[in-house]
Amino acid sequence: MTARERLFLYDTTLRDGQQTAGVDFSAEEKARIARALDALGVDYVEGGWPGANPTDSDFFDAPPSLSRARLTAFGMTRRVGRSAANDDVLGAVINAGAPAVCLVGKTHDYHVTAALGVSLDENRQAIADSLRHLVALGREALFDAEHFFDGYKANPDYALSCVEAAIEAGARWVVLCDTNGGALPHEVFEITQEVTRRFPGERIGIHCHDDAGLAAANSLAAVDAGARQIQGTLNGLGERCGNANLVTLIPTLLLKAPYRDRFETGVTPEALTTLTSVSRMVDDILNRVPDRHAPYVGAAAFTHKAGLHASAILKDPSTYEHIPPELVGNERVVPMSNQAGQSNLIRRLSEMGIKVEKGDPRLARILDLVKRREDEGYAYDGAQASFELLARRELGLLPRFFEVERYRVTVERRRNALQREITVSEAVVVVRIDGERVMSVSESHDPVSDADQGPVNALSRALAKDLGRYQSYIDDMHLVDFKVRITGAGTDAVTRVLIDSADGQGRRWSTVGVSANIVDASFQALHDALVWKLVRDGAPAAA
Amino acid sequence: MTARERLFLYDTTLRDGQQTAGVDFSAEEKARIARALDALGVDYVEGGWPGANPTDSDFFDAPPSLSRARLTAFGMTRRVGRSAANDDVLGAVINAGAPAVCLVGKTHDYHVTAALGVSLDENRQAIADSLRHLVALGREALFDAEHFFDGYKANPDYALSCVEAAIEAGARWVVLCDTNGGALPHEVFEITQEVTRRFPGERIGIHCHDDAGLAAANSLAAVDAGARQIQGTLNGLGERCGNANLVTLIPTLLLKAPYRDRFETGVTPEALTTLTSVSRMVDDILNRVPDRHAPYVGAAAFTHKAGLHASAILKDPSTYEHIPPELVGNERVVPMSNQAGQSNLIRRLSEMGIKVEKGDPRLARILDLVKRREDEGYAYDGAQASFELLARRELGLLPRFFEVERYRVTVERRRNALQREITVSEAVVVVRIDGERVMSVSESHDPVSDADQGPVNALSRALAKDLGRYQSYIDDMHLVDFKVRITGAGTDAVTRVLIDSADGQGRRWSTVGVSANIVDASFQALHDALVWKLVRDGAPAAA
Repeated sequence: MTARERLFLYDTTLRDGQQTAGVDFSAEEKARIARALDALGVDYVEGGWPGANPTDSDFFDAPPSLSRARLTAFGMTRRVGRSAANDDVLGAVINAGAPAVCLVGKTHDYHVTAALGVSLDENRQAIADSLRHLVALGREALFDAEHFFDGYKANPDYALSCVEAAIEAGARWVVLCDTNGGALPHEVFEITQEVTRRFPGERIGIHCHDDAGLAAANSLAAVDAGARQIQGTLNGLGERCGNANLVTLIPTLLLKAPYRDRFETGVTPEALTTLTSVSRMVDDILNRVPDRHAPYVGAAAFTHKAGLHASAILKDPSTYEHIPPELVGNERVVPMSNQAGQSNLIRRLSEMGIKVEKGDPRLARILDLVKRREDEGYAYDGAQASFELLARRELGLLPRFFEVERYRVTVERRRNALQREITVSEAVVVVRIDGERVMSVSESHDPVSDADQGPVNALSRALAKDLGRYQSYIDDMHLVDFKVRITGAGTDAVTRVLIDSADGQGRRWSTVGVSANIVDASFQALHDALVWKLVRDGAPAAA
Repeated sequence: MTARERLFLYDTTLRDGQQTAGVDFSAEEKARIARALDALGVDYVEGGWPGANPTDSDFFDAPPSLSRARLTAFGMTRRVGRSAANDDVLGAVINAGAPAVCLVGKTHDYHVTAALGVSLDENRQAIADSLRHLVALGREALFDAEHFFDGYKANPDYALSCVEAAIEAGARWVVLCDTNGGALPHEVFEITQEVTRRFPGERIGIHCHDDAGLAAANSLAAVDAGARQIQGTLNGLGERCGNANLVTLIPTLLLKAPYRDRFETGVTPEALTTLTSVSRMVDDILNRVPDRHAPYVGAAAFTHKAGLHASAILKDPSTYEHIPPELVGNERVVPMSNQAGQSNLIRRLSEMGIKVEKGDPRLARILDLVKRREDEGYAYDGAQASFELLARRELGLLPRFFEVERYRVTVERRRNALQREITVSEAVVVVRIDGERVMSVSESHDPVSDADQGPVNALSRALAKDLGRYQSYIDDMHLVDFKVRITGAGTDAVTRVLIDSADGQGRRWSTVGVSANIVDASFQALHDALVWKLVRDGAPAAA
């Protein structure tokens, strides 16, 4: 077979991704993401626009050390009326010292005359001078051709002349941008093909946005037409509808014909297995709930709900999966739901070490109960531990440990003796263990670490404070995450609380509680978390 | 110009969309969505699989009356070994009485022999008999060719022979399915072209899934290759990564060349302007937070964060928008953020009726404050009212009305005299109005309507119970929605509460509160909501 061509990956999560409404990375978070991109095998990491804001300047002042990716600074071509050497904005970008610099410039005649208010020649000259300046300083020079596809449709000669000016000035790459994100795949293919025909070799890149839901397809169309650099972001972050999603494109390029056979990238099959965790890390930094339905890496990307699908999956996963989930570090899930048949349920129970024969009447009862609970607002897809307790209860496999007789939580906001406003949370829990009443109280108020102020944490600590003979089983568990969803509306509104817990053995489990009262819903989830832990550690039933 | 070809839209939100993990429509919700699809101008509304589950059967027992869309029942071809007339599963589908019936059948040889365990001839015969049976009963017959693209790649002759069998049996449509969602646009184009070449005319449909983020592009590629029916779902609901998103495809087909010139659909330009609200309605039914970054209809789809973009947008929106947002019922947003320049801020303030000159030093102070608050966890993009209060405070335009001296909320779970478990919430608020202390208490416990049980609602009612001279201003306001987000992790975790309020004048506004204590965060948002209402209604400042 013939040698594969190199396809370069350029990540702009830290610059274009930063434009996402609600996204605002700190310099430390940028460094963490840059290192993850480097480890993943991305070729270029665009760190931001030095001088545009304090965070980006801080990031380039103390850049992370990258093993193979080239750190790239973003900026714009010199302003008309100054020399490249005397443009302070361009100067700040260059002085950041990144080995590669990507400068955006206009290639759409209307934008040049209307938005910039300069002549077409002046703009083209600014592009040429700026790129030449970078090359003279020994930097790898990239030209970001803003609005290129719209510009080409309006005035192809001018758009192409800007590309030519950049290349003649020594630009290593000219990146064709669908800035407004409205181009269609056939347009991107035809226009990119015209550009690569005129400027052959490994010189042209593609930068797409997802405003018509076509960013991934447009990027592939450009590669089909000869582009050899793909720009995108992690999780498709980016202004408006986002940029091309590298988390989606990378597996397609590595796993699917013809790309996997025609091209090689810096991403190894081993690195590909970290893709899901890299994607989740970005959501984690942004405190975002990961998109369950994201291609390849979503929690539901390999979740088989339909009964028919689920049973076929048990015979052969390839029947309803386009790739094996483990290749991208994801996993197969056959969740509970009223659509799932008994075969799912038997499979799920066996995963919990519970063996039930097909046709056992209790299976139908469990499915029915799950359905009724889901109607009430419970969600077991994300709360496996609560599902297990529900199933065990129905199967008569759930020991009784302790009983909560009552609890009370108080949150008070007032001024203290120093006239300073403080908030105090107090929780009292009364449990019955082996017929004996145990009363525990837990209080918290600032100044203490933030996480300790809430009523749910006070309740959690009071509940876990003294469980008598069960105390030793729960000492190593702690609350990892706490999610709240209001479902229903108006007077039908109920609160769903999902709690993630972990223990010293590295186990992590999720429980759910539903109530119109958020404290009540939280308590249910906390209670399930404790009971699941006791079950798993084989604690003895109450006397 | 030549007459435009008809392109048919087929929605399967109520069937394939129902396969989404966590989605479970009630019969009433299905009827509501069906009517919305009918009003939008979709040609076929697939209601579900009669007999497969109680909900779908209920839905077809009392179907919604649709003005133009054809209600379609989904099922599968007769099982091998029975006649179409004697297959009870097929019978249930037909007896639902829908004018159109879509039957799925296998066209991938491996699935026939491995999953079904029958011969290729038997499977093809089952397809032919089942479709012929539908036609004999006077139904519009559609054949859903499962795994067609993978099947064609494995055994083109067999896959094509199944299509031929369905068409010879009288199928009005044969729908080519990329069941596993892994096909690429060029494959879909080439294979669909081969099918339409052999079976010309308006007979072939396309059904794509988004497992590689290409469902929209694959659907368009099939249309380019001669397919004349597109199947998809609202908001791209569907198993795993979802189906082709009709909410994305419809505007592309209506607004972008060459589709807008070559084809006509049942969707009028007027109906297109309801697209955003239809999309939001589905999220509303599912109690999902709408995807801010969804193409065309997302809240951020026309949000311009970058300072450079924002200023160009003020000159001419087309500079950074691929379509005018109003065409799809969406709107332009230039949000606050530390990236937004003073020009955004001046524009935003003027929208609130506050005039500030460029260069006013208070503008920089406001931007700086917003940045600091966002670092603490506040989010003003979604809480315009809280932003307005912040700006007014900095500008000295916020009157002082009342002051909250202290509050206390208690949630107690216990058994009542009848030994029944009850949860009681009680809130006490002490406010100072014109130097006078007013103490209000509010209690709630079941049995009352669910929404009244929570501590936040108790607090809200206590706070709004007696505000003296301000009472009349707030009597017509109520809490519409309440969202909670935990941001940060571990001991840095803080809770962000977003509250939507509405009043008798039909106004709706959002406020935000942030604290490590969820009750405290809720109280801040409630307090802002009240104050904004007093400002907007011109309540007089405290004496």
